[in-house]
Amino acid sequence: MSRVVDITELALRDGHQSLLATRMAMEDMAPACADIDQAGYWSVECWGGATYDSCIRYLNEDPWERLRSFRKLLPNSRLQMLLRGQNLLGYRHYEDTVVDRFVEKAAENGMDVFRVFDALNDPRNLARALEAVRRTGKHAQGTICYTISPLHTVERFVDMAARLRDWGCDSICIKDMAALLRPQPAYDLVKGIKEKCGADARVHVHVHSTTGVTMVSLMWAIEAGADVVDSSISSLSLGPGHNPTEAVVEMLEGTGYATKLDKDRLLKIKEHFAKVRPRYAEFESKFLGVETEIFDSQIPGGMISNMESQLKQQGAGDRLKEVLAEVPKVRKDAGYPPLVTPSSQIVGTQAVFNVLMGRYKAMTGEFADLMLGYYGETIGPRDEKVVELAKAHAKKELITTRPADLLKPEWEELRTQALALPGCDGSDEDVLTYAMFPQVAPKFLASRAEGPKNVSRKAAPAGAAQAPADGSGAAGKKPVAGPVAYKVTIGDRSHQVTVEPA
Amino acid sequence: MSRVVDITELALRDGHQSLLATRMAMEDMAPACADIDQAGYWSVECWGGATYDSCIRYLNEDPWERLRSFRKLLPNSRLQMLLRGQNLLGYRHYEDTVVDRFVEKAAENGMDVFRVFDALNDPRNLARALEAVRRTGKHAQGTICYTISPLHTVERFVDMAARLRDWGCDSICIKDMAALLRPQPAYDLVKGIKEKCGADARVHVHVHSTTGVTMVSLMWAIEAGADVVDSSISSLSLGPGHNPTEAVVEMLEGTGYATKLDKDRLLKIKEHFAKVRPRYAEFESKFLGVETEIFDSQIPGGMISNMESQLKQQGAGDRLKEVLAEVPKVRKDAGYPPLVTPSSQIVGTQAVFNVLMGRYKAMTGEFADLMLGYYGETIGPRDEKVVELAKAHAKKELITTRPADLLKPEWEELRTQALALPGCDGSDEDVLTYAMFPQVAPKFLASRAEGPKNVSRKAAPAGAAQAPADGSGAAGKKPVAGPVAYKVTIGDRSHQVTVEPA
Repeated sequence: MSRVVDITELALRDGHQSLLATRMAMEDMAPACADIDQAGYWSVECWGGATYDSCIRYLNEDPWERLRSFRKLLPNSRLQMLLRGQNLLGYRHYEDTVVDRFVEKAAENGMDVFRVFDALNDPRNLARALEAVRRTGKHAQGTICYTISPLHTVERFVDMAARLRDWGCDSICIKDMAALLRPQPAYDLVKGIKEKCGADARVHVHVHSTTGVTMVSLMWAIEAGADVVDSSISSLSLGPGHNPTEAVVEMLEGTGYATKLDKDRLLKIKEHFAKVRPRYAEFESKFLGVETEIFDSQIPGGMISNMESQLKQQGAGDRLKEVLAEVPKVRKDAGYPPLVTPSSQIVGTQAVFNVLMGRYKAMTGEFADLMLGYYGETIGPRDEKVVELAKAHAKKELITTRPADLLKPEWEELRTQALALPGCDGSDEDVLTYAMFPQVAPKFLASRAEGPKNVSRKAAPAGAAQAPADGSGAAGKKPVAGPVAYKVTIGDRSHQVTVEPA
Repeated sequence: MSRVVDITELALRDGHQSLLATRMAMEDMAPACADIDQAGYWSVECWGGATYDSCIRYLNEDPWERLRSFRKLLPNSRLQMLLRGQNLLGYRHYEDTVVDRFVEKAAENGMDVFRVFDALNDPRNLARALEAVRRTGKHAQGTICYTISPLHTVERFVDMAARLRDWGCDSICIKDMAALLRPQPAYDLVKGIKEKCGADARVHVHVHSTTGVTMVSLMWAIEAGADVVDSSISSLSLGPGHNPTEAVVEMLEGTGYATKLDKDRLLKIKEHFAKVRPRYAEFESKFLGVETEIFDSQIPGGMISNMESQLKQQGAGDRLKEVLAEVPKVRKDAGYPPLVTPSSQIVGTQAVFNVLMGRYKAMTGEFADLMLGYYGETIGPRDEKVVELAKAHAKKELITTRPADLLKPEWEELRTQALALPGCDGSDEDVLTYAMFPQVAPKFLASRAEGPKNVSRKAAPAGAAQAPADGSGAAGKKPVAGPVAYKVTIGDRSHQVTVEPA
């Protein structure tokens, strides 16, 4: 008898987020749902900050309606979301009752599993959201953001897991968003958590595939006792995305571990997304290969391209190497935050400033906030001199309390503002949309009635958006089929002329 | 202290063979050689049947000159080649003294490690070549082609390894050309060989990455004691190629195993091929993702596209499913040959014939030869009725001797024919080129003096041959922005005409 390893399918959220800039329309996911629902997954991740943002920013889709659609289309599946702790799906801390309300509404609309994380791994930023999930009776998953630094030891991570477990989390997730989790620490972490929290402590493992090592890390995590691993159907996998679901199934064959997945269903899901993906080629991640440099630089690929463009704007495109060398120093000064959104941008921009203007001669407001505790606690002590500079710069004091403790009740004000927006239907869901994305929500609410806008190239024949193997280039090379209208000016006279193949 | 795991770098042979149709020119590999030579590889694979063929067929490069160049450019490295046993680098059996001469010449020109395999795993087809290698004092590596069938058990493979070891092979290679080697059999095979042949029996593991599971198989093979694993630098890896070298290095970090590779050198090699590869985009493998269907169908992707085009030529493009179902039956009738070149084509074509014309109503000459023992012995018994049909079709008898025993000395005749060709310089190397590829060699020898022809798009700016990330396709697709001026002549009068979008 094999031990069952369960699988969370990522295609509907992190898969297309990592590979296709989160642009996939609901109508392109819906046809795969019947197979996904019957394939035997433990859960189906389908909602999160970026998908919510993309829905209202680019797709004119109501994210709550998307959630309700998934609920209908996946009646037998656990729906799973990624929640940024006290930030919910936005980019700032929310006052506690907004957190409560968001979680309630998500549960009410069909969410089953809440994966709750904080970019700094400050447990105080997770507590309220986890508590809210527990009140709804849904699955509360406490998350550890994996990173590498002199202070990030297996012991510290295991301690954090124990704390999350003590708070009553239904499971612990090891979340490796930068593909830094090598096989040995994957094994040690899972083993450590199981030993400290008990064999019945559920451990989920989420890895990306960027560095090419994490398929092995999943295997070692499973050998150490991981209960659930995340993967994405092969046609939406690899590169900055995830390991392919079908390969996880096959790798376990004969090992004493097995998934419950139905391979025929997986093939259908794969074929569906293989057909859909080329239409989103213009949004595709530029680099789909393997990058291992991040192990040494600790700088995610996306962060490097951000810094490059900042430098170019300043006419200092040749100073990237200096900036790359500065990043680890800034990170150390800031107490070794994991480098993920938003800390990666904050640290990266400050490193650019330091190189261009001298160390901490100028400081972004966000970096000052990071140094002064307004994002939460970091694992390491922050450099005292830089803290002093941050105080002077921001004219703010250092805080040691939970950042959200500084916030006053804000729901009524958010509600009043939202209700004033044209198109707002007065629901709590609409107020939450406004609360999450106050810049984007007004335009979305006003245009919502026009219905979803699919941004893929629906008209293109299958595969047309990918480079043809014969190198002949895109459709534009084909001869013009019908008449084309031109304005032709001869001397000073203009003519409307139509031209068509003779 | 970590146990050292050695690495064979595949970029210069199987890497570009699997990803870029073997088209890479020597001049595009040469600049990476200094770093490759210093990176700490156990060996550098750089020569084989397809590279030899491609050199004379497409690149107007003398393959022997290429070998001598590698010898000069990689003075500290073991050069490694892939040799098809009694077929050498061609597509038929050669008489024994031709085998001897080829091996001698390869050793003389700088080859160090000979990986010798036979598509049917018939050890009799390996014996002479291995013996010839041993006489030169070079490294003789006996190879097991890994495949899946009801008869291909770990025990049978281990028995074959023991036999190769008894013949004095310096090492054993497990060669998984179709990415079918899952972690558990990888572990069992290496363990089995080490137990049966002794801990000092060197085991090398060669896998492709097509199915997405083999990085884990390499890890498990290492855990079982594998001495050397094969990989390809990341910018020439994945898809139908191999696992990325840098990822193998990183995966081992902290595990108690380590490579001797220099990461700075690897980064330079990676960057070199990342720059070169886009110029070969027109030759790039169409599918670079993960395919796991082969585990069930046992039909490699390349074989499916072959069968599809055969069916289409017959106006039977809709019958692929029947053919796919027929392949395992034909394979069983033929005694379960591994499905690799040439057996995959032979079995696949016969399956097409069976579906279109009725089972074995027609038979290819090659399939008849396979059934009658002219390619060698298969692991399983061949179907007696089909053997009878093959005799009738081919008007030949069944043989049980080693196929090459039927051949008469042929060197003198080959030499006479080769020397008659314009451009032949009379060397044994030229005679061997003619012997390997009698159809292609005459044209090559005649044009050799013109020098190498690089088939990459040298003129294209970096990355131009890849699909642009914004999806805008070839230049032709962009709309004309401003007015365009033409001189239009109607009859004998010329007009200045400007045209712009209406």
